[in-house]
Formats: sequence, structure tokens, C-alpha cells
Amino acid sequence: MNRCDPLDWIRVVLCTTTHPGNIGAAARALKTMGLCKLYLVNPRYFPHPDATAMAAGAADVLDRAIICASLEEALAGTVKAIGCSARRRDLPLRVLNFRDAASELIQETTSGEVAVVYGTEMSGLTNNELSLCRELAYLPANPSYSSLNLAHAVQVMAYELRMALPDIETMATKTYEAASFEEIELLFRHFEEKMIAVGFLNPQNPKRLMQRLRRLFARTQLEKLEVNILRGFLNAIKEENTGGTTL
Amino acid sequence: MNRCDPLDWIRVVLCTTTHPGNIGAAARALKTMGLCKLYLVNPRYFPHPDATAMAAGAADVLDRAIICASLEEALAGTVKAIGCSARRRDLPLRVLNFRDAASELIQETTSGEVAVVYGTEMSGLTNNELSLCRELAYLPANPSYSSLNLAHAVQVMAYELRMALPDIETMATKTYEAASFEEIELLFRHFEEKMIAVGFLNPQNPKRLMQRLRRLFARTQLEKLEVNILRGFLNAIKEENTGGTTL
Repeated sequence: MNRCDPLDWIRVVLCTTTHPGNIGAAARALKTMGLCKLYLVNPRYFPHPDATAMAAGAADVLDRAIICASLEEALAGTVKAIGCSARRRDLPLRVLNFRDAASELIQETTSGEVAVVYGTEMSGLTNNELSLCRELAYLPANPSYSSLNLAHAVQVMAYELRMALPDIETMATKTYEAASFEEIELLFRHFEEKMIAVGFLNPQNPKRLMQRLRRLFARTQLEKLEVNILRGFLNAIKEENTGGTTL
Repeated sequence: MNRCDPLDWIRVVLCTTTHPGNIGAAARALKTMGLCKLYLVNPRYFPHPDATAMAAGAADVLDRAIICASLEEALAGTVKAIGCSARRRDLPLRVLNFRDAASELIQETTSGEVAVVYGTEMSGLTNNELSLCRELAYLPANPSYSSLNLAHAVQVMAYELRMALPDIETMATKTYEAASFEEIELLFRHFEEKMIAVGFLNPQNPKRLMQRLRRLFARTQLEKLEVNILRGFLNAIKEENTGGTTL
């Protein structure tokens, strides 16, 4: 176990799962987000070919899944457990949304192992199971149809856990060289000149054409390369050939 | 269509989906988050009993799914399309993570319909498909196993879209009319045609000129008026006068 990776300190616990395909799909969901600890409390069928098929490249997560006879057993040694639900429930538990719950769980891994707990497919966590959890994580869903597939709910929480990692690189960074103010001004002058040359812009009655063009490019943070492309194109428009009848 | 619900203005487009079960699971994922517009570009099998079974209570989303012969057809009338990928790709497109992309899409629904686009299961979006998208949404995943199930990736984006819903009152009001997908595509074709005509673009050796231009304008959210200005200028460049020596 890598002390440095908070995701290694998170158990995902599935209680009395009915469809083995969901167990496999959950394993895959976990692995795609960098989680690896799957606990199964009294799965109805496991191991099962459907679980293996749905796990795709996450067979290792499935192979290392720990099967428990009770939720108590699955939570043994953890410092915090959060139950997941797509329904609001009238229970004396603190309720957080998935995002805040994920953030708390990641924080809490500095103290020890933590757990995210899911109930059975049809009805979710029982009140008994929830009583073993410290908090309820609530997934904001369509009030008129909140029935997420179990593995999908696992995917969303795993995603939020990964997003909550302190040093996660969430964005690809590309470094392009921005055009300078002067380069952009020269581009505008070039546009204006060619628009006049081809008879599109009448300098006696310019309307608001150049302002519109400025506004458009003001939104883009033009790059040097792009300015060069546009000016190359403008250069290629030959003035002697285009007449410039309005000049 | 309820003008007040931004989710009604979002199309989820699945390109050449291989497994019909994924289509059904995606429909269910959408409905749980309050989305309802599913577009299918050349699905391998549809309708199909697996799709119906996996849709569970979201049969209505499946029944209303729109089947298209091309991605262009699916994007017709949209003002913005974002392609989804769990891989980083070396492409001249702006890259955002799912969360930021969802936030932008919700904002953009004030201008018109927007689209989230997914490629086929095994390999994701092709470069051609991506070239029709304005941005790439990147799902931060485990670098050593980033292969999310298609419907799971749909679930995560749908969840982020729901999470990005603002209070309706705080939505930005736009006073400009956004250009549509078709208008922008025509603009690109017009640019290409004139760049060839004036000898700036060699169709035998186009390099990456058009991709660069697409990337530039992908960042701007072009307005109808701006497209008209640019096309007016392009129109004014007379081909018979410019020689078009490379043609």
C-alpha cells in the first residue's frame, strides 16, 4: 500500500449485490479512477462469469476483492464510513452531496482507511446498514427518476474521489505562445487594408466593421502562429488584382 | 422544450456505438440526471432488446432517440459541441476537464442547443469527428487504465451537467445571437476555398492550416453577425482576379 496515494486507503463496499455483472462493472469503474479496494458483503453470485466479463481490464481488482459475511466485517479497521444514496432519507445522519463527501473522505485518509458503502440494487442501504455509517452521501439526481445503476453510482463517487485528490492534474496543459498587443494591432491594420482593397470596407462609410472584428478577436487570446496564418492569407490576396474600386 | 431548464438544451451524441446495451445504459444515465436528448450516429444495432433492458425506467429517452447518418447531421442546429475523451490527445483543440466543460455547456445553453459527443467504445472519437467539435472534454482517469465503459463516461458528464446547473436567475443573459454549427462549417469551407484561390493554401500540401483556423475560431463562440462579416469579406475577394495559381 502506497502511503502517498490516498486512493489506496479507500474501500468501496457493495452490500448484498444481486447482479454479478454490476460487481464487475464496479471493479472497472474503480480501476479507471485509480481505486483498487473492493469489499463484497454477501454477494448473491460471486465469482461469476458476468462479473469477470464486465470487469474488462480490471480483473485484478475483482481477484483481490474481499468477501465479507457482514458490513461490520467490511468496515473493521476503518476510521470513517459514508453510505451512498440517490434518495434523500429521513435519518438522523449528516447528509453531504457526493462532492463534499469525496473531499472529506480524501482528507480522512490521513488518519486511516475509510469506506464508501452501497446497498443492494433494488432498494439501496437498509437502515441497519446506514446505522453503521457516519454520514450519508447524497447524489443529486432527477427527482422523478433517481434510479442510477449501481456501478454508475460507484463510477461517479470514484470520479469525485479522484477529482478531490490534492495534486490531481485535472487539465491537459498546452503551451502556445500568445501574440503580443503590437502583433494583434498589425493584424487589424492588415485586415482593414485588405478589406478596403477588395471593396468590402468603404473607408468613407466604415460602419462598425473594424470594431466588430476587434471584438471577435478580443475574445480569443490569439497566438503568434494564428496571427501569422491570418496575415499570410491576407498577404496572399493581391491588391493589384482585386481592383480596390472603392479607393 | 422548457426554456427554463438548461438540461433540455443539451444533446448527448453517441457515434457508431457497437454494443446496444451501452445505448440503453446511457439513456438511463441521462434520465437519472434530468437529461433527455439522445442522438445516435450510425449505431451498429438499434433498436435492440439489450438497449431496452439496460435502459430500465428510461425507455422514453430511448424511444425518442434520434438516429443520424452522420455526426454533422446530429450537430445541425447546435451552437457548441464538445468531444469527450479519457485519453489526452495531441490535437489543436482547447482541452478542458469534464467539470469545466459541463459548466461551459450549461452557460452556452442560453444561446441555443449544445452537444456532448462520444466516440465508439473501443477507440473513442476519430480525428474527423473531433474536428467537428469545438473543444475536447478530458476525464481525468487512471493513466495506467483509463478505459471507462461508455455509459459510465456518459453518467459522469451528465452528473457534472446537473451539478453545474445554476439558479435560473443567475444565468447570464446573452444579447448576441450565436452562430450555428452549419454556419460555422460553411465559414470554414469558405475560408478554405478562398485560401486555395489566392494561392495561400496548397490543397496538395495543406499542412495543418485548416485545423489551426478551426482551433482559433473554436475558442470564440462566433456570433451570426461575425460570421456574416467574415463571409462578406471572403466573398469580396474575387477569384477571377486573384489568379489561383495553385489550382
